[in-house]
Amino acid sequence: MFESAELGQTIDKQTFEEQVPALREALLQAQYELKSQSRFPVLILINGIEGAGKGETVKLLNEWMDPRMIVVRTFDWPSDEELAHPPAWRYWRELPPKGKIGIFFGNWYSQMLHRRVDGQLDDTELDQSIDYALAMEQMLCDEGGLIFKFWFHLSKKRMKARLKELKNDPLHSWKISPLDWQQSKTYDRFVRYGERVVQRSSRNFSPWYVIEGSDHRYRSLTVGRILLDGLQAALKVNTRRLLQPHAAPLVDTSNNCKLLESLDLSQAIDKKAYVEQLTAEQARLSMLLRHKHMRKHALVAAFEGNDAAGKGSTIRRVAAALDPRQYRIVPIGVPTDEELAQPYLWRFWRHVPALGRFTIFDRSWYGRVLVERVEGFAEPADWLRAYAEINDFEETLTRSGIVLVKFWLAIDKQTQYERFKARENTPFKRFKITEDDWRNREKWDQYVDAVGDMVDRTSTSFAPWTLVEANDKHFARVKVLRTINDALEKAFEKD
Amino acid sequence: MFESAELGQTIDKQTFEEQVPALREALLQAQYELKSQSRFPVLILINGIEGAGKGETVKLLNEWMDPRMIVVRTFDWPSDEELAHPPAWRYWRELPPKGKIGIFFGNWYSQMLHRRVDGQLDDTELDQSIDYALAMEQMLCDEGGLIFKFWFHLSKKRMKARLKELKNDPLHSWKISPLDWQQSKTYDRFVRYGERVVQRSSRNFSPWYVIEGSDHRYRSLTVGRILLDGLQAALKVNTRRLLQPHAAPLVDTSNNCKLLESLDLSQAIDKKAYVEQLTAEQARLSMLLRHKHMRKHALVAAFEGNDAAGKGSTIRRVAAALDPRQYRIVPIGVPTDEELAQPYLWRFWRHVPALGRFTIFDRSWYGRVLVERVEGFAEPADWLRAYAEINDFEETLTRSGIVLVKFWLAIDKQTQYERFKARENTPFKRFKITEDDWRNREKWDQYVDAVGDMVDRTSTSFAPWTLVEANDKHFARVKVLRTINDALEKAFEKD
Repeated sequence: MFESAELGQTIDKQTFEEQVPALREALLQAQYELKSQSRFPVLILINGIEGAGKGETVKLLNEWMDPRMIVVRTFDWPSDEELAHPPAWRYWRELPPKGKIGIFFGNWYSQMLHRRVDGQLDDTELDQSIDYALAMEQMLCDEGGLIFKFWFHLSKKRMKARLKELKNDPLHSWKISPLDWQQSKTYDRFVRYGERVVQRSSRNFSPWYVIEGSDHRYRSLTVGRILLDGLQAALKVNTRRLLQPHAAPLVDTSNNCKLLESLDLSQAIDKKAYVEQLTAEQARLSMLLRHKHMRKHALVAAFEGNDAAGKGSTIRRVAAALDPRQYRIVPIGVPTDEELAQPYLWRFWRHVPALGRFTIFDRSWYGRVLVERVEGFAEPADWLRAYAEINDFEETLTRSGIVLVKFWLAIDKQTQYERFKARENTPFKRFKITEDDWRNREKWDQYVDAVGDMVDRTSTSFAPWTLVEANDKHFARVKVLRTINDALEKAFEKD
Repeated sequence: MFESAELGQTIDKQTFEEQVPALREALLQAQYELKSQSRFPVLILINGIEGAGKGETVKLLNEWMDPRMIVVRTFDWPSDEELAHPPAWRYWRELPPKGKIGIFFGNWYSQMLHRRVDGQLDDTELDQSIDYALAMEQMLCDEGGLIFKFWFHLSKKRMKARLKELKNDPLHSWKISPLDWQQSKTYDRFVRYGERVVQRSSRNFSPWYVIEGSDHRYRSLTVGRILLDGLQAALKVNTRRLLQPHAAPLVDTSNNCKLLESLDLSQAIDKKAYVEQLTAEQARLSMLLRHKHMRKHALVAAFEGNDAAGKGSTIRRVAAALDPRQYRIVPIGVPTDEELAQPYLWRFWRHVPALGRFTIFDRSWYGRVLVERVEGFAEPADWLRAYAEINDFEETLTRSGIVLVKFWLAIDKQTQYERFKARENTPFKRFKITEDDWRNREKWDQYVDAVGDMVDRTSTSFAPWTLVEANDKHFARVKVLRTINDALEKAFEKD
């Protein structure tokens, strides 16, 4: 496949010098338009053969364009903070915000290729890695992002010649690393797996461009033109392209009602049993978090529920079990402008705990399919795709050892009414009840639908929902703590 | 000194139980007020003897208050990312934003005490560390922050008894680390240096509270009350307390004029010399950044200058020397809301490069004493204190091996006029000239004063200003590159 690019394409000096000024001006103008629209980010992935001009081309792009609006990142050896997080974390933390261009060297494709060439992955695992990468890219594009993937190619003969040439050039010999020499030995394997990766990960939303790398004028001009065409096309579309909602219809909403109705909200626990069981579960959590197996895991607990269902007080009972140095509570409210400049899940990724740590989300990434859906803050196409994105996100977390527990605290309409009234009548709790709460309450049935769909579509084997009957706060607190403890124990048993 | 706290103060159970509910309610209310005002952050530093109840007290505060608005951080062994930055970087990245409470265990005082007890520091160095800490705290307070410093104390006898007690308690013996046992051996030294630290670092703006730690009711109630009083007092002041401008008057502005007027802006370089020298300096920079000494340093270049003085094009010539993976360009514009919720220098700290790296600031922390001063965006008290804060900041950077170069690109009024006109007449450059630029131009003389004061007050031995005669762009570019290279070489020679 790559051989088809091996026609030794060249561009002569005169043509190059004639064409560069206009291309450069157009690229700069597109870049300023990108910045002034600040509607979407651009991500450029750089891969391919060593010596095929990857670095030189990116250097030239930085010269042609305004380097102040380009962020170039290279992902070589991960830091210990990165190693303590899911592998995708290091890419998320470096994603370019809307209006900027990010260029990623040593990205996920480089990592998987190196590991396949080294024999750390087999073909099936390589294909799986490709699927994960595509899910990430699909999400970025669905969020409006523009992706370019460039594979810089050289034939084996040319690659060896290039390395030799560099070696003999005292000014540039530092450019060749031991890795490059190694690649000259593993060239055949590298190209074979490279072809597999490129073939399997080309999509309309993030196509590969294979660039013949031997002629510097050809490769520079070609990359520049591809970028310009893509940028101009994306900048012209003034409204965000809205996707087709996913094909699968939502479940019959009558089932949703049944789901929540089937909960036996009358479940309760007497005071004495509560104190005993709560204390026992708190002690258990405290021990489990200090267990040596915890070093290979992290814990994430996400709390959702009806207004006044007792999320806050339940979270406090969980926290009370622990030394405050052991957990972080992340309340999810209005996103900051830095968060709004990133894909939806970015604001949650930044709080994903390192190994050994515990993060509690007070409301979570499910806001998109709950409040944003019901209030119309998100387009149907956006919240409909969120189910799959959330499942991917949660699988990514659990795959790297994070134990994830998700709670829906359910109360009935009458209990909510009583709690709202009680809040209004307690001077000290009055700040906890606003007009908004009463307005939300009018949408009770819509929330029932939204919760039903959410539980139906995001209850997975790796991250099941726990519905918590919360009319009785004591019952709810014990159930939450016990669920967390059971999940941790189960994870430790598998180790 | 600590002995005065050793009166074995206790509070009986009944008093405690009577007083806690009201205290708790008041603390919670203050916390919500803090959040709703979001005018300032609260920082609580926790220090003292092991076993004196530091952890337990913070745990209780988290139970009494809303833990969702408290961030507890502990700074034990630094990560490799932290080790590659100035020591203060890890504290800056964890500072609580306005409206939140941050509790720091293992903070700067713990670090300096450990190092003093271990003999890694002598008394003079300890005192110096205290000065650095106070400068940081002063800055936080000047930015509106509220600081509490608690020293939890125990007599030697009680400390040993406490450790023994814990050891014999199977449920809590994990609480004692080898470090705690070590402290029982180094108790005397620890207390001696602890007293020195507490005495020398108590200030009106960040006082120490020495808490006798043996009785848990006494210590909890005392800490709770101190916090409440401090919070309520700070919340009552509705406008931000404005400081007295620094005592020293600004320099005679006629000198400022002379400073910039004394520049020989006619300096120029012919095309041939330019190409030769630029190429040579670019090659030199490229080599220097790959020099093995660079591993012990980082490079920061800050660019300021008149509008149209050529900052952008100069930065591009610097970048052109390098592989784009070697540098980051940080354009400084309008702060994000996350940046606005932090002290002024936070947005620069987050971009401080790790060892071996190079960061270019296109405009910088000097905005406060330039545009913010001239446009009235900052109060005089704020920009007047900025000089000292900036000097502290830059000293902190250079102290840990960062090479810092600062450029003022100067052109005369006529040259600016010509460049503005040229921009207006070039379709491609028209976006670079706005009404604002013409307005700023009218304030030329005020900028002359501001630049004069800035250079006068922030030219230090560790971070001198370089004034760059920029009427001739070629001359300016070569001078900038040469200055960077000379600074790097000088730093390497000292190694």
